[in-house]
Amino acid sequence: MELNGVKIDDNYAEAFPNWACRVIITAINEQWAIQAATEATGFATSAIGCPCEAGIEGAVDASETPDGRPGISVLFFAGGKKKLKEQVIERLAECVLTQPTTAVFDGMPDAEERIDVKLHFFGDGFEYKKEVGGRECWAIPIMNGEYIGEENFGIVKGVAGGNFFIMGENIPAALMAAESAVDAIMLVPGCMCSFPVVASGSKVGSNKYKFMPATTNEKYCPSIRDKVEGSLVPEGVGAVYEIVIDGVDEDSIKEATKAGIEAATMIPGIKFITAGNFGGSLGPFKFDLKEILGL
Amino acid sequence: MELNGVKIDDNYAEAFPNWACRVIITAINEQWAIQAATEATGFATSAIGCPCEAGIEGAVDASETPDGRPGISVLFFAGGKKKLKEQVIERLAECVLTQPTTAVFDGMPDAEERIDVKLHFFGDGFEYKKEVGGRECWAIPIMNGEYIGEENFGIVKGVAGGNFFIMGENIPAALMAAESAVDAIMLVPGCMCSFPVVASGSKVGSNKYKFMPATTNEKYCPSIRDKVEGSLVPEGVGAVYEIVIDGVDEDSIKEATKAGIEAATMIPGIKFITAGNFGGSLGPFKFDLKEILGL
Amino acid sequence: MELNGVKIDDNYAEAFPNWACRVIITAINEQWAIQAATEATGFATSAIGCPCEAGIEGAVDASETPDGRPGISVLFFAGGKKKLKEQVIERLAECVLTQPTTAVFDGMPDAEERIDVKLHFFGDGFEYKKEVGGRECWAIPIMNGEYIGEENFGIVKGVAGGNFFIMGENIPAALMAAESAVDAIMLVPGCMCSFPVVASGSKVGSNKYKFMPATTNEKYCPSIRDKVEGSLVPEGVGAVYEIVIDGVDEDSIKEATKAGIEAATMIPGIKFITAGNFGGSLGPFKFDLKEILGL
Amino acid sequence: MELNGVKIDDNYAEAFPNWACRVIITAINEQWAIQAATEATGFATSAIGCPCEAGIEGAVDASETPDGRPGISVLFFAGGKKKLKEQVIERLAECVLTQPTTAVFDGMPDAEERIDVKLHFFGDGFEYKKEVGGRECWAIPIMNGEYIGEENFGIVKGVAGGNFFIMGENIPAALMAAESAVDAIMLVPGCMCSFPVVASGSKVGSNKYKFMPATTNEKYCPSIRDKVEGSLVPEGVGAVYEIVIDGVDEDSIKEATKAGIEAATMIPGIKFITAGNFGGSLGPFKFDLKEILGL
Repeated sequence: MELNGVKIDDNYAEAFPNWACRVIITAINEQWAIQAATEATGFATSAIGCPCEAGIEGAVDASETPDGRPGISVLFFAGGKKKLKEQVIERLAECVLTQPTTAVFDGMPDAEERIDVKLHFFGDGFEYKKEVGGRECWAIPIMNGEYIGEENFGIVKGVAGGNFFIMGENIPAALMAAESAVDAIMLVPGCMCSFPVVASGSKVGSNKYKFMPATTNEKYCPSIRDKVEGSLVPEGVGAVYEIVIDGVDEDSIKEATKAGIEAATMIPGIKFITAGNFGGSLGPFKFDLKEILGL
Repeated sequence: MELNGVKIDDNYAEAFPNWACRVIITAINEQWAIQAATEATGFATSAIGCPCEAGIEGAVDASETPDGRPGISVLFFAGGKKKLKEQVIERLAECVLTQPTTAVFDGMPDAEERIDVKLHFFGDGFEYKKEVGGRECWAIPIMNGEYIGEENFGIVKGVAGGNFFIMGENIPAALMAAESAVDAIMLVPGCMCSFPVVASGSKVGSNKYKFMPATTNEKYCPSIRDKVEGSLVPEGVGAVYEIVIDGVDEDSIKEATKAGIEAATMIPGIKFITAGNFGGSLGPFKFDLKEILGL
Repeated sequence: MELNGVKIDDNYAEAFPNWACRVIITAINEQWAIQAATEATGFATSAIGCPCEAGIEGAVDASETPDGRPGISVLFFAGGKKKLKEQVIERLAECVLTQPTTAVFDGMPDAEERIDVKLHFFGDGFEYKKEVGGRECWAIPIMNGEYIGEENFGIVKGVAGGNFFIMGENIPAALMAAESAVDAIMLVPGCMCSFPVVASGSKVGSNKYKFMPATTNEKYCPSIRDKVEGSLVPEGVGAVYEIVIDGVDEDSIKEATKAGIEAATMIPGIKFITAGNFGGSLGPFKFDLKEILGL
Repeated sequence: MELNGVKIDDNYAEAFPNWACRVIITAINEQWAIQAATEATGFATSAIGCPCEAGIEGAVDASETPDGRPGISVLFFAGGKKKLKEQVIERLAECVLTQPTTAVFDGMPDAEERIDVKLHFFGDGFEYKKEVGGRECWAIPIMNGEYIGEENFGIVKGVAGGNFFIMGENIPAALMAAESAVDAIMLVPGCMCSFPVVASGSKVGSNKYKFMPATTNEKYCPSIRDKVEGSLVPEGVGAVYEIVIDGVDEDSIKEATKAGIEAATMIPGIKFITAGNFGGSLGPFKFDLKEILGL
């Protein structure tokens, strides 16, 4: 199979269920909404070593936010509801409420499952309920005025671990393609890339160090291609990047995979696209490249 | 006292000791060094609710990094050495090693106290020792080539909690002054602003909710100025921001305080600058504005 | 009249006809499309002293450009067709064709009036015709591959000089409001802000220097409010900015005026919004704030 | 010759004299200084089709500007003094004075040759002389307060046309190397890249179209390598970019050439570096790569 002259592997990505929460952060301008969102979604690339997975879903026009200000939508993912709630609370309390001019709104008002994110006690009695754009919020007096926040957020059972691999002639080609893929995915609603680009793929466990839960996936490493039996790095490939996608549902990951691969294959020097799976042992979701790309 | 026409309070900031570690992150270009540094220092505004405090210290020219590539220096702070080591390991493993083209180098080669940050087992036997710019590193094969990293980092007993408050006529004036202050502090070596701007000051404990360890510092809240006895918000002030500075030593915080206040007072609409302390009960370090500004 | 608590003057902006040309610039990524667009639309704030007026209209998603790459739409305005054609040719030749990976496409394929922009002779015989996305283009071999360009562009009789004035308590408030206004206008199709923010309003002629065709409009200058009889600066206003809008038709300027004023009035510290006219002597187009804002 | 594993051609760049003027633009923050500088130096890639050549030299710390605010240094180049003066006047009047919070200062106070840039008549009698940081300026009342400007600027006989060529395996590699080269050159004082990256090299005249003063330099075009006798594109090269440097003296161009080539050769996928000359017929300055790089 080929797309824009790039060979596409007849393979699929494997993913697994994960709880997802969406928060709309608004601020006096987009720059400060991004600043708060970036801080709140940092140290959240992979649930293996980070407290949760999180990232920016995209921009929300002022005309579509409850308070009419520019917004950024962020997504948080965790395996369990309790962990998700704990992380959303801590990250909103420490990284959003503390930031200039922010307000937060529930990004999944129709979800049945819900978590409470009670920050209003911070107001020490000076807080009060306030309706903003039809949302029941708390207004908490702080140093730059009032922090406005909803305190009940919808959560849904989403999907973590959607992915594809970009292989290029050299690092600049593969990296520019990965950047273009992420830019394209940023325009797809319902998903985000927590890394945003992965330069180091892992395999479960280790051949040499038994105490390691995960180690480098040597079959995808170009620099040791000649030393590794069964290397999956095609000839002429000098660099590989993985794009990992978490989404609120399967469709958003499908759309993101399609948009990301199409963008990546537009970049000169890209040789091969594939996806990662564990033969079906990891999770119930399969994202087949052939089907998704309509090839 | 006045500086650039802005009234300066005859007050001091109070700060306390904290362990600090500096990591130099390099990458193929500054953009990707910043990307990795931002992810690694996210969710790290305040040790109260975050696992550590962390931020970008500044850019390091390619001519001054061990591998001759553009670099970003980041600082991590924690109360205990064990916590600091744990956080540096996790954040480098999850947020730097995984990012495109990164390498990490010890930013305090002369420090006597040291921590090990052993990531090379990730190489599963394909890793090897490699000297880079006179530094003993490990090279770990990953998907985009080799991750290069030193694995022993100096730490020093630094200072957390340096601070000053910017009070302005309205939010835009106070916020633009806070931005200018942070820009100026970014040029001062040895320190960083983990927040970077604080919109919500706290007091210890609560008057109303006994279960809260910290609540809004109502005396600095302009919107309830008329309701709070002993409000510290001067007449005509509509917004207050705090700049919090962690540094590797007292001098860097002094220099940052001076540079930050000078920059903030250049912005039209700024009325008053002060600093925060707990009367000497919090920590042994005092940063006196009068002395620091030479007024 | 008030909007978001800000007083709106019952006044109108006056504008005049101008020829407009839209060019879609695509590149390997949005960053380089912006770079080329910025160079091509520089030194083009006002037709009074610049060769033409030009600016970025907005981003065009890869899915909507003829070559499927990220695009930036730019608008050029001039009083005469000949001048417009000359400027489009020079600016595409010097500032777009020369830039990495660019292609250009006609942004007004349905316009009846058209100009030729023949750059293909630059190919010295190595150029050839090539269809891209249904567009008849020339492919010109250059150092980074092939420059792709349409060579016939639609032009329309548009409108120059749409405007409104933002008055704030101080510079930061007025400037942040102006930035927000420009951000909002960037989302409106069919128009652009060539300045993008105007800090120095002009009046025609001079009271003192007879050789000057235009001088400062002293009635809008806060610093000399007390010296100028009939000053139009309200009490409490410390800074004034004008947003000037050129559009391909009246509707786009109306929509931009509405979006820009709504965004500006959301910023704390804004006191007054008005518009500029010459009593009807300048041009046939009137943009009435009351009507546009629905007040 | 090799540098960082990249083959360096034993060749030289040829350049010619040009008048240069440096203007320091300051503003309320670096963002707005950059905005004004970008507008003022737009449509100025090449003197062949643009009114002049211009670009950003670099950032100037607030501590080093006459008014203590963040600054951007820009350089303007033209063949004749009269043309240079005319362009500096127009560009400061239309693109700097009109922009928010700007001030301008002479960037070559020690130069003997000088040009007058009289903008103060715009004040219509409300302007007045004002000393700022030891500089004799005019203060002109405008809408956001006062524009501050020196009106006499030093000019020197500088050098235009310094250059080198970067050849890479593919567009992403060559482009990323060109970006790194420009970033490195930005740190070198005394020079700027007006393009900033050139994707389309020219030769004088045309083989086919006698009316064309300059056409594509087919010997540097990878896409027609097999059709062009004497192609200078080495095997395996997919993209070529030229970096053109204008400087205030020979030394700045030498330093920039060295810094730019060193940075470019750090990028994976770069195969060859050379320089452009016309055999000595163009100008008196020669920049020999071997000597400059110390190879």
